[in-house]
Parts: sequence; C-alpha cells; structure tokens
Amino acid sequence: MAGSPRRAAGRRLQLPLLCLLLQGATAILFAVFVRYNPETDAALWHSGNRSSSDNEFYFRYPSFQDVHVMVCVGFGFLMAFLQRYGFSSVGFTFLLAAFALQWSTLIQGFFHSLHGGHIHVGVQSMINADFCAAAVLISFGAVLGKTGPAQLLLVALLEVLLFGVNEFVLLSLLGVKDAGGSMTIHTFGAYFGLVLSRVLYRPHLEKSKHRQGSIYHSDLFAMIGTIFLWTFWPSFNSAPTMLGDGQHRTTLNTYYSLTASTLSTFALSALVGEHGRLDMVHIQNAALAGGVVVGTSGEMMLTPFGALAAGFLAGTVSTLGYKFFTPVLEAKFKLQDTCGVHNLHGMPGVLGALLGVLVAGLATHEAYGDGLGSVFPLVAEGQRSATAQAMYQLFGLLVTLTFASVGGGLGGLLLRLPFLDPPPDSQCYEDRIYW
Amino acid sequence: MAGSPRRAAGRRLQLPLLCLLLQGATAILFAVFVRYNPETDAALWHSGNRSSSDNEFYFRYPSFQDVHVMVCVGFGFLMAFLQRYGFSSVGFTFLLAAFALQWSTLIQGFFHSLHGGHIHVGVQSMINADFCAAAVLISFGAVLGKTGPAQLLLVALLEVLLFGVNEFVLLSLLGVKDAGGSMTIHTFGAYFGLVLSRVLYRPHLEKSKHRQGSIYHSDLFAMIGTIFLWTFWPSFNSAPTMLGDGQHRTTLNTYYSLTASTLSTFALSALVGEHGRLDMVHIQNAALAGGVVVGTSGEMMLTPFGALAAGFLAGTVSTLGYKFFTPVLEAKFKLQDTCGVHNLHGMPGVLGALLGVLVAGLATHEAYGDGLGSVFPLVAEGQRSATAQAMYQLFGLLVTLTFASVGGGLGGLLLRLPFLDPPPDSQCYEDRIYW
Amino acid sequence: MAGSPRRAAGRRLQLPLLCLLLQGATAILFAVFVRYNPETDAALWHSGNRSSSDNEFYFRYPSFQDVHVMVCVGFGFLMAFLQRYGFSSVGFTFLLAAFALQWSTLIQGFFHSLHGGHIHVGVQSMINADFCAAAVLISFGAVLGKTGPAQLLLVALLEVLLFGVNEFVLLSLLGVKDAGGSMTIHTFGAYFGLVLSRVLYRPHLEKSKHRQGSIYHSDLFAMIGTIFLWTFWPSFNSAPTMLGDGQHRTTLNTYYSLTASTLSTFALSALVGEHGRLDMVHIQNAALAGGVVVGTSGEMMLTPFGALAAGFLAGTVSTLGYKFFTPVLEAKFKLQDTCGVHNLHGMPGVLGALLGVLVAGLATHEAYGDGLGSVFPLVAEGQRSATAQAMYQLFGLLVTLTFASVGGGLGGLLLRLPFLDPPPDSQCYEDRIYW
Repeated sequence: MAGSPRRAAGRRLQLPLLCLLLQGATAILFAVFVRYNPETDAALWHSGNRSSSDNEFYFRYPSFQDVHVMVCVGFGFLMAFLQRYGFSSVGFTFLLAAFALQWSTLIQGFFHSLHGGHIHVGVQSMINADFCAAAVLISFGAVLGKTGPAQLLLVALLEVLLFGVNEFVLLSLLGVKDAGGSMTIHTFGAYFGLVLSRVLYRPHLEKSKHRQGSIYHSDLFAMIGTIFLWTFWPSFNSAPTMLGDGQHRTTLNTYYSLTASTLSTFALSALVGEHGRLDMVHIQNAALAGGVVVGTSGEMMLTPFGALAAGFLAGTVSTLGYKFFTPVLEAKFKLQDTCGVHNLHGMPGVLGALLGVLVAGLATHEAYGDGLGSVFPLVAEGQRSATAQAMYQLFGLLVTLTFASVGGGLGGLLLRLPFLDPPPDSQCYEDRIYW
Repeated sequence: MAGSPRRAAGRRLQLPLLCLLLQGATAILFAVFVRYNPETDAALWHSGNRSSSDNEFYFRYPSFQDVHVMVCVGFGFLMAFLQRYGFSSVGFTFLLAAFALQWSTLIQGFFHSLHGGHIHVGVQSMINADFCAAAVLISFGAVLGKTGPAQLLLVALLEVLLFGVNEFVLLSLLGVKDAGGSMTIHTFGAYFGLVLSRVLYRPHLEKSKHRQGSIYHSDLFAMIGTIFLWTFWPSFNSAPTMLGDGQHRTTLNTYYSLTASTLSTFALSALVGEHGRLDMVHIQNAALAGGVVVGTSGEMMLTPFGALAAGFLAGTVSTLGYKFFTPVLEAKFKLQDTCGVHNLHGMPGVLGALLGVLVAGLATHEAYGDGLGSVFPLVAEGQRSATAQAMYQLFGLLVTLTFASVGGGLGGLLLRLPFLDPPPDSQCYEDRIYW
Repeated sequence: MAGSPRRAAGRRLQLPLLCLLLQGATAILFAVFVRYNPETDAALWHSGNRSSSDNEFYFRYPSFQDVHVMVCVGFGFLMAFLQRYGFSSVGFTFLLAAFALQWSTLIQGFFHSLHGGHIHVGVQSMINADFCAAAVLISFGAVLGKTGPAQLLLVALLEVLLFGVNEFVLLSLLGVKDAGGSMTIHTFGAYFGLVLSRVLYRPHLEKSKHRQGSIYHSDLFAMIGTIFLWTFWPSFNSAPTMLGDGQHRTTLNTYYSLTASTLSTFALSALVGEHGRLDMVHIQNAALAGGVVVGTSGEMMLTPFGALAAGFLAGTVSTLGYKFFTPVLEAKFKLQDTCGVHNLHGMPGVLGALLGVLVAGLATHEAYGDGLGSVFPLVAEGQRSATAQAMYQLFGLLVTLTFASVGGGLGGLLLRLPFLDPPPDSQCYEDRIYW
C-alpha cells in the first residue's frame, strides 16, 4: 500500500514501541506516586467514622459515567462521519483516550492533589482525566485523517502536559471559574488543534478530496456521537461543580442551552442551505454548541432565559461558521480543519468564556445569597469584587489562547520530525493504511 | 428535486422562520415566567439549612438522564429503520425534542409549578418535559415520512399544549395515577398521531412503496433504538414516582414485564412468520410493549408475577397487531401508520390503563400498609374507595382518548393548510428533499 | 431456503413452543415463589422507620443500569461484527437475555435470597440476574452463527442453573471473593461455551467461510458494543461490591486496568499485524480484557499500579491469543470459537482469578485497616489467614473450570438431540434462515 520497505518496517515498530514506552513510563510513575485517596482506600475510609452513603462516589459517579460515555462514544462516533475513516476515528479516539486518562491522572495529580508526595485518586480525578482527554480529542478533530496514531500519541503527550499547566494557572493561580471547560477544554483543545493543523498544512490535500466527505451510513454513525454528546452534556458541565444547587443548576442551564442551539442550528442550516435543505454537518456539530457556550457560566446564576439566549447565539455562530468561515480559513489562512472544531469548540468556547466574564461581573450578594461562596469564593470572602472576578475570567481566556497556540505550534514542529510517518497527501482520510 | 421555484423558495423560508419564531416566543416567555426552583437557585437553596446531599438532584437526576437518552437516542434510532429516511428520523426527532422540551416546560409549568406568577424549574420539570417530548415523538411515528419538519413543529405546538391539559385533568383534577404514562404519554401520543395520520390520508402513497421498507443496515440502526429503550425503560416508568420503595418497585416491575414481552414477541413472531422466520419489525417494536403496559400500574403492588403476565400479554397483542391489524387499519380505515404506533403504544397503552384500573381496584390497606398514602393518597385519606379510584382511572382513559382524538383531528386540519408543504406522494420516506 | 417441508414446519413450531413453555414455567414459579423484598414492598418498606433516601435503590440502581446496558447493548453489538449475522447477534442476545434474567432470578433466588419460602427481589437480584445473563452471552459468543435460537434457549436453561450452583459453591460455601466475576462470569461463561463448541464441532464449517468475516460497517456496529462495554465496565465490576470505599475503589481499578489493556492491545496488534497494521478484531475484543482481569481483585487493595500492570498483561495475552492461539485451537483441538471468547473471557478470566489469589494472599490488616472485614470478612474474623483465603480462591477457580466444562459438555450433548435444528454447514453465520 504505502512507501518503501524500510518505511513500512519503521511504521510497523513506531506505534508499538511508543505505546509500550508510554505505558511503561506511566506505570512506573503510577507505582511511585499514585495512591488511593481517603474515599477509595480501605484503611483510610474505615478509619473515619463515616457512613458508606457519605462517600463522594454516590454524588459524582453517575456524572462521571456520563462524561466517560461522551468522551468514548460521543467523540469517537461524531468523528466517524468520514466515509473511509470510521475505524481510525473510533479506534484512535479509543487509543488517545486510554493514554490521556493515565497521563492526565499524573499531570493533574501533580498540580491538584499531591499529598505528602503522593497523588490521591478517586472519582474526581477520573472526571478530571476524562476532561483532559476531551480536550485532546477536540484537537484530534482538527487534524483528523491527516496524522498517524504514533503522531497523535506524541501530540497527546505534549497536550496533556500543557492542559494541566493551563488549568492550574486558571483555576488555582487566577481563581477563574470554568467548571464545564469553555476555556480549559473547548477553547484550549480547539486552538491547540487549529495551530497544530496550520503548522502541518498540506498544500496538496485535494488529492484526498474524494474521501473527505461522508456517505449515508457514515453520517448516521456520526449522529450516534452527536446525540450521545447532546444528551449527556448536562452531566459534563455539572460533573465537577459544587454539590447541591450548583450541580443541579448547571444541568438545567446546559439542558436549556442545548435545546436553543438545536433550534437555531436547524433554522440557520435551512436558511443558508441550497434549496432550503438542511446540512448534516451542521446538525451533527452546531447543535452541540449550546453545551460548549455555557461551560463557564452554567454553574452561575445565568437564569433559564440566559441559557436559551446563549445556546441560540452559539448555534447560530457555529452554523454560520461551518457555512462561511471554514472555507475562508482554509483558502486564506491555510487552516485545514477536518471536523470544523473552530465552529463547534473554538468560537463557542470563546463566546462561553466571554459569557462567563459577563455573568461573573453581574454577580451580586442578592442573587446568590449564601450560595455566593460556592460559586465565587473569592468574591464572597471579600478578596475580589465581581468586576475583578470578571477581569480575571477575561485574563483566563487570554492565557488559554496563549497556551493553546504555543502548544499547538510546538506540537506541529514535533510532528514534522522526519522519522514520524504521516499519511501521504493521496492517502489521507483512509483507514486502509492503518487497518 | 421538487416543485416550482416559488414553492422551493417558500420551503426554504418556512422552516427557518418557524424555528426562529417559536424560539423567540419561548425565550420571551422564559424571560417573563421561568425561574430556578428552591433546589436550583443559589440563594434559595442556601437559605435553607440543608445538606448538599439532600438536594433532589441526587435522587432523580440519574433517572432523568436515562429518560433523556430514551427520548433522543431511543426514539430517534428506532425510527431510523426506513432505508432512505434515517437523517430525517434522527434529525427531526432531535428538532422536535428540542422544541417540545422548551415549550412543555412552559405549558406544564403553568399547570403544575406556578409559584407567585413564576414557573419553578428543576430536575422534575426536566423529567416532565422529556415525557411530553416522548408523546410528541410517538405521534411523529404515525406520520413518519409523510410530513415536513415545519409541519411537525406546528403539530408539536398544538400537541404539547393538549398534552399539558390532558395531564392536568388526569393527575390534578381526577387524581388519576399514571407515573409511567400508559395513558398520558402512550395512549395520548398514539391516538393523537393516528387521528392525525387519518386526516392526512394519502390515497396514492403506494407511489413511495419502494422506500417504505428497511434495508439490512437500517434495521441494525433501528435495533440501537430498541435496545436503548428496552434497557432504560425501568428508569422511564420510575422517574416521577415517589422516592424510596415506589421508585424501586416500579423499576422491578418494568424490568420483568419487558423480559416477558420479549419472549412473547419472539414466540408470536416466529409463529405467524413465513416459514417460522422472525420479523425484525416485531422484535424492534413489540418487544418493548412490556414497558408501555406497566406504565400506570408499575408503581402499584402489581407483584412480579403480575408484571410478567402483563408483559406477556402486551408482547402478544402488539405482535399480532403488526401482523394482522395494521394491514386492516390501512385497507379498511385509511390509517397509514408508518411505525405501527398503534401496536406499540396504542393498544399496549390502553391495556396498561385497564391494568391500572384493575390493580387500583384491588388495592387494600393490607397490601400497601403505610405505603398506601404514597401510591393512592386519596384512598389512604379515606376520600375514595379503591373501587372509586379504579373508576377514576377508567375515566382518565376515556378523557385521554377524547383529548388525543380531538387534538389529532385539529392537528390534521392545521397541517392541511395549503401553504404548508408536505412531500408529494412520490417523495415520501425520502431524505433527499430535506437534506 | 432450507430443508424439507416437514423440517421447516418443525422449526416453525420449535422456537414459539419453547418460548411459550419456558415463559409459562417461569411465570408459574414467579407466582409461587417471587415476592418484593423489604425495600420494594410498599407495606414492608413503610413499616420500617426509614427515610426514602436510605433505600438501597439510590446506591445500586445507577450501577445496575450500566450493567444492563452492557449486557444488552454491549454484548449484542459486539457480536454484530459478522457481515450477515447482525440480526441474529443482536436479536438472539435480546432473547437470551430476556429469558436468562427471569430464569436466573429464580435460580439465584433459591440459592441466595430465600426467606420463608419466598424469593425476595430488588435491585441486587436484578444486578445478579444480569450477571448471569452476561455469562450466557459469553458462551453464546463461542457458538455464534452455528446454533439456532431454540438450541440457545435450551443451553441457557442449563447454563443458568449451573451458573447458580457454581456461584453458590464459590461465594457461599467456599467464601471466595469474586465481585466482578473473573471466575463466576468470565471463566465460567467462556469454558462452558468452548466445551459446548467442541462437542458441536463441525468439520465442514469452511462451507460458510465466506460469511465468517466482517465488512466495513459491521465492524463499526461491533465497535458500538466494544466502547459501551469499555466505558461501563467500572460499573460492572463494582455493582455488587460493598458500599462506600469498596465500590469506589473497584471502579478506579477497573478504569485504570482498561486503559492499560487498550494500550497493550494497540501495541501488540500493530506489532503482530501485517505491515504494522492494526486488526479490528483485536481492538474490539482484547482492549476489553482489562475489565475481565480485575473482576476478582478489583475490590481488593490492588493499587493503581497493580491495576495498570494487570490490564497491560491481559491485553497482551488476549491479543496474542487472537493472533496465535485461536488458529491452533481450531486446527489442533477442533475448537471453533466464533468470537474468540477464549481470548477475551477465558484466559483473562483465569488470569483474573490467579491475580485474585495473589492479591488475597497479600492482604494484611495494615493495608485494609478496619476495612478488612468488608473485603475479606473471614480473614478479619480470624477464621482464615490471608494465605488460606488465597488457597480458597484458587480452589474456586478449579471448581469453576470443572462446572463449566461438565456443563458445556452436557449442553453439547443436549444440542445434538436429533429433533433440534441447527443450521447446515453451508448456512452458518447467515441471518436469512431465521429472519
């Protein structure tokens, strides 16, 4: 199928060796650093005088499972729209998620849950690791079909690290709120992937043009991804928020926002479609923008109306992005964005960050009552005004864009190393070279 | 593909304008009326002295998610059995659900959770809205492939309203029990859709006959819908019941009933099939009748045996309905029921209502103990005898059939408005005119 | 299509009559024996002075739902990889699960929850019944495509019985720990199915060779099964463990183990694949071996590193099994194992049992603290040393292998009864004879 015998032999060994090396390294680091936390360790849990039903497991695990389904089923199948790339879309999603979950447990653990030299793990660390895997898969969407699995693993190695740093800067140093990750997950993942794709620009990609579209059944497989993402998104945004009203409110806001982005996506898709026809690409993607756009503000007192308005706007921007902006990005900015992550995660993520700035700036003691401390602890403690919190939120967005761009650039340079083996221009979006 | 240029232009604008209009209207109503309830509002929740773990979220949200998956994944893919209508089946399900969830939040809110002029929303309102969306999607099944998306949105506008009224009459005025909606969801949705389909009768539908069946892969996509519905149905019936034993018992009854309807469906399908062969249509649909038939009685002391017997009967009736009754309905009663909702939701729904009459009539203080107040509060308070409760249940069925029929008829007249644009007889069950 | 008219008539009646007979029998047994347990019965629950939120439902039902999805969606679609056997894979999974759930409720009830002559049912019995159904479906995988539905029901009748006996011997008589069923589910199901397949050896199966592989879309359907199994496996292993830290720790261990088996599967698959290509069969199956291998030890203090190491080993063994061992089994041992259950459930199940021996033997009061009583009650009570517990675990594996082998042999003899009607050698892996 491809290349010279030596090249084939190289490829044959590259992926296995990299998998084994990475797995060996994380396993050693796990042995040295990772320990059960007091809610998972038999001795520690039973040394406290707590009832089984107090275990955090019962409050977070159902949300974790929903997030886990979104990461594996949702992202995997959403990317299976390409006619000849279903195995790779689903399979590499699986591979990347598996690696990112381990590696991110370590990176996030070093930053957030280091106790006495040990990383403590439990349901929260599982949720956080899945969030990081989501960012990696968003970036994957931008280069889908144009990179090999070994390349993707190397990028994930870098991206998980930078994701952890960026998240630490935002959440721990700047005191930014971003439960559902409009910034840390969507904006970061999207712009990392976009810059990566830009660095890997292929001027002769039209050689694979005939494989770049979908066929009837591949679009239906992609809809499996879409609908699972849509259904479970309220759990995604609420998985790491404060227990009680915080989690409850976040699900409600996300639910409303998604209904509105769906309606605006259908409206806009038919409006800009040829002969008023709907476009599957819009429905599969832009309808989900409502989940992205309330990632930051979903836990705040956004109000149900605010959620509808935000979702409506996100669906509109995303659909118009697919129609008008993606072709321009490719033609003018040499940005080949296979899944249109700029439209689903990039712009809605930035919008979501800005919405967070707005809603944080409007926070009052009256609206949040004694709950202000749960949502904006620094404001409740009087360390910051609501306006200052808003400014920090805005600064968090700029930090995220910086980390994402620099990271994507570094990733791109890494992938241009000559011994790595990308598919040739004429074999992009093609399963047969890997399966 | 279709019609004159003006007609195409009309269609081009109809769906977008309707989406925008409906979204605009619900958004304004949300702004005026919809507020977080005391479990979702930061100030209200924290003003009570309650532990986070008391929040209703932790008792109802997992059920909500299961219901949400059933509505979006289950119904959407179940209807994807048609060979050339998968995009529309899944896509319009998505659109209808998104709109119905918003609109029903308002309608059900006006009837059930108006406090000081405001509708209070939380996990219960999300469950209720999803239930209403399910009824709308059941009706969609009867006219699948024969209506356009703008038509469907208009029908949903009417149906959600009547669903709310009917539900209010049954649950609030008549004190009828119907947690899983044998009456309010299945019977209502089915007969609404059937009368709608009757009014929209197409004498020349045979022009699209060749597209009306399934192909191999479309049947497998439909099985995704079936199995998700089957798996999560215990959560559906139990989502709104009383906490504790009520919810627990309902899941158990539904689980048993579904196993029995599956066995009777396989038995009957092979018995009436050519050469003893099984029919995918039966397995995809009739096997689910066990969930429908215990919608009313699932929370009652039906007994595990009762659940098996009910499920067995429902699977039998439903399979025989597909084999013998559907052709008669079409030939003699001009009733073109694309998905056979009469067999899956209509007859099993009525059976479920009647089973509710029976089990309610048999309720004793001995069998329910102090739990009688949870299941039949009016009987426990001595305001009604069990027999009277049974009579109210029966009356509730008649009310439902009336509302459904009148509503379906009105819906049909609405859809015959000349400027609406149904697919021509030769283009039914065809994605290409919309996608 | 098939056989003489009399044979066709026989087949026509065999499946329906068997379904009706089995359903009739279980229904009668349900009427006589099965009753709501104190958590599901209205009178019993309300006679206690308990809060609704104490009901076990809220601690186990989300896990149950995840297990239920795995059994129905996971197993069903995983077996849908065959190009012309998707209907049967998904449909017979559905039929077998429905029957096994009922029958196993009775069998397991007789062994584990008989109170005053009545079997008490609730969420735990639902989880247990689903576990038994999983074992039946594992066995189904070994004979997939070579047996008819009536044959499968008869085998299930026998297998559920033996599953219950084996489980009773291990858990109740020997005091063996096996929450996630490395022994009781995976080893038992796999070797039962393998011996069954051996007894039903078909020397001329190559007549159906052309239908034995997958095609592009059928592999994608199978990936639906894989990913659902992978995602929800942490819930599977933890569903029946002790509440609190036990359940929490089990999910964590399973999650890590699965990530490692995924990485080792990708590594090994590419290493042994032609030109370094990955093999869908490996990814679909071997990546799941990490869930199987921690079925016994997942609730123990395996440590996160231990989970990674176990998963890595299981993925490696399983992938190598598919590549090198399956062809030998077929050629030398006349073992036709359609789904390769020996590689996914057999070897990893045995490994998991041995890992349980090791981890149990290493249990100390120091590592488990006061939690030792939850994991190893007999060790905590001083009735056994950790070493003795390890020996019992090992003995449990031998008992399981014995029951499975004898059971599979008996099942094979049963299925060779002349009036049962297997597909001819030339019609294996073919839906058309049943659908």
